[in-house]
Amino acid sequence: MPSLAAARQHTLRERNLELVARAVYEAPEPVSRADVASSTGLARATVSTLVDRLVAGRLLAELAPVSAQRAGRPGVPLVPAARSVVGIGLEVNVDYLGASVIDLMNDVVDERVEPGSFHDSNPAEVLPRVGDLARELIASAESEGMRVAGARLALPGLVDAHSGLLQVAPNLGWSTLNPVPLLGLSGLRVDVANEAKLAALAELTGDVASSFLYVSADVGIGAAIVVDGHLFLGERGWNGEIGHVQIDPAGPRCGCGATGCLEQYAGKEAVNRAAGLPADAPVEALVRAVEARSPAAQAALERAASALGTALADFVNLVDVGTVVLGGAYTTLLPWMRDDVEATLADRVLSAPFAPVRVRGAVAGPYAAMAGGAREVLRDVLASPADWV
Amino acid sequence: MPSLAAARQHTLRERNLELVARAVYEAPEPVSRADVASSTGLARATVSTLVDRLVAGRLLAELAPVSAQRAGRPGVPLVPAARSVVGIGLEVNVDYLGASVIDLMNDVVDERVEPGSFHDSNPAEVLPRVGDLARELIASAESEGMRVAGARLALPGLVDAHSGLLQVAPNLGWSTLNPVPLLGLSGLRVDVANEAKLAALAELTGDVASSFLYVSADVGIGAAIVVDGHLFLGERGWNGEIGHVQIDPAGPRCGCGATGCLEQYAGKEAVNRAAGLPADAPVEALVRAVEARSPAAQAALERAASALGTALADFVNLVDVGTVVLGGAYTTLLPWMRDDVEATLADRVLSAPFAPVRVRGAVAGPYAAMAGGAREVLRDVLASPADWV
Repeated sequence: MPSLAAARQHTLRERNLELVARAVYEAPEPVSRADVASSTGLARATVSTLVDRLVAGRLLAELAPVSAQRAGRPGVPLVPAARSVVGIGLEVNVDYLGASVIDLMNDVVDERVEPGSFHDSNPAEVLPRVGDLARELIASAESEGMRVAGARLALPGLVDAHSGLLQVAPNLGWSTLNPVPLLGLSGLRVDVANEAKLAALAELTGDVASSFLYVSADVGIGAAIVVDGHLFLGERGWNGEIGHVQIDPAGPRCGCGATGCLEQYAGKEAVNRAAGLPADAPVEALVRAVEARSPAAQAALERAASALGTALADFVNLVDVGTVVLGGAYTTLLPWMRDDVEATLADRVLSAPFAPVRVRGAVAGPYAAMAGGAREVLRDVLASPADWV
Repeated sequence: MPSLAAARQHTLRERNLELVARAVYEAPEPVSRADVASSTGLARATVSTLVDRLVAGRLLAELAPVSAQRAGRPGVPLVPAARSVVGIGLEVNVDYLGASVIDLMNDVVDERVEPGSFHDSNPAEVLPRVGDLARELIASAESEGMRVAGARLALPGLVDAHSGLLQVAPNLGWSTLNPVPLLGLSGLRVDVANEAKLAALAELTGDVASSFLYVSADVGIGAAIVVDGHLFLGERGWNGEIGHVQIDPAGPRCGCGATGCLEQYAGKEAVNRAAGLPADAPVEALVRAVEARSPAAQAALERAASALGTALADFVNLVDVGTVVLGGAYTTLLPWMRDDVEATLADRVLSAPFAPVRVRGAVAGPYAAMAGGAREVLRDVLASPADWV
């Protein structure tokens, strides 16, 4: 989420510094000072001064000069500085906790993940463990001269976009909680966000669509709405609860208290149980079962895909975003679910006859929420580079 | 919808003119030049010059001076000018077509509504009738010295937010259509929008919440998402299709081709049929039946309310807006539906235990889409007042 600090008024000089930093950061390839002048519309001399400041402050780095492609245009390629300023992504999910350090090159500098079972866990025991992990990674990064800009904590529940309070995380059994003090990370700015929303932001790379619905399965099913590269958060940031869309009024009871929720058809534990596997079996076990043509596993995935297609159709009909990105366990299971999901979308989405819904797997890897969280921290750095140089 | 024209660059002087016009237009009470200077932060002399220009151009009017409340502060109250610049709202719906003229005081200057049956109608016959109505109202307004700023046409279907093309309006039987040329209103700027979205904007008056989900029943059921006073349009403007949210996989087939859609439980024709009334009976007939304790009518409304509650719960879980405004036939039927709707929302919305969803009836009256459309035209006028003075 954009922080309030990032929204404050900048001087013209600070604004130009931001423009130059972003021009380098967002370019797909290394760019020269001349390229930056051209893409920002700033004078060449202004750009040079600002680039020098960003290089001296280690937000940008210069590569070896390349021979001029045309006369009079020798280029010193500029790139974001590696292992200089870093952001930290933290996460507690139902079956793991972890921390990840990412630099301005978008490289994972360090990462720790501890598998566990955090169903109905005690936040006063779990969050200090995340804090300990973070402290280890921070100490290691600082010992190598990196500066830690801040951290984002991803949680699988309703997080208030304004206050950062966790309202409820049903699958953790947590409610009405300010998680940050329990981390014990004094002196570090830590913001809190819903895990699916941070994972969605990790998909905003390269040339993928900048508008998509992100839906990710773990035990629960989270979602995020991204339009033109920005999260749509609704009124309070509690949106994307697709796991509790009703699939069948006669369906099974959900942990949330309602009946027939998507989570009971297409959540990880529900699919595992229907497939005859232990509830906490890893997704690879389900893949092995369906590849071995287990009828129970095949039926479980068909039921999950049909239910997911129905909920996604509701989502697209209500929100109108024409691309769906499937993350978490769905990325792995997509080959066995795609046909049923797409058929249901084609049947149910009002705009499908003239604009079929596109479905693709997530690309950001298994700990996308940590990656997205760390990148959000760095996005704030680039919105106020003057604070760092 | 904000027009592209409204988004162009303004000079500082034009921007200040807009600030002053808005300050008067958005104030709940008449304001003085001093009040405007205070609320805009502009110098008193600047405000006076700009107000004089807006009064001369008949966007603002001066009331009789009031005696000073305090020494040194005699006030000439400023108000939007009545019957000066007007906007036109046009609409084709399943059972009527109409046109409405609204002035800057937000008063309905003139309005014509023709009941009819436009199920599976021919747009090449229907739209020219709307154009004829509009021409009559325009001639009448201009003969009284009013200036017509433009028109918005409301249609019950998917309207592309960028091109203004109608993709599909299932209950009219219209598809893939550019409706504006068929109106035959040359020389007048006409934009097209979904009727529920324009009706939602008509709810943005007085001190009601500025974030709400608007859901309106006619034969179809339309919806709009308003956050902080602005429509959220998704990727293309095709959102809010709550009528096609799935209520029951074993439910009846819908006109859209899918099964179990909300419209088949809570659309006007579906409720009428379930109540044993003719499909096109007016909502008042349903009210009489339920007041006469017709078991069929009572059961029909219970079924509709429960289905509506389920779809609204999905809507709130996915989008996170905590207030629901019920329009169209639902406004009239709310007393008999409220309990079931609120009970279902309390059961199914994940955030309901700590933030109950608020439900209220619409206040903008039966032709809200026409009113909202005309007001959108005037909103564009106030975004570029320099074009009118």
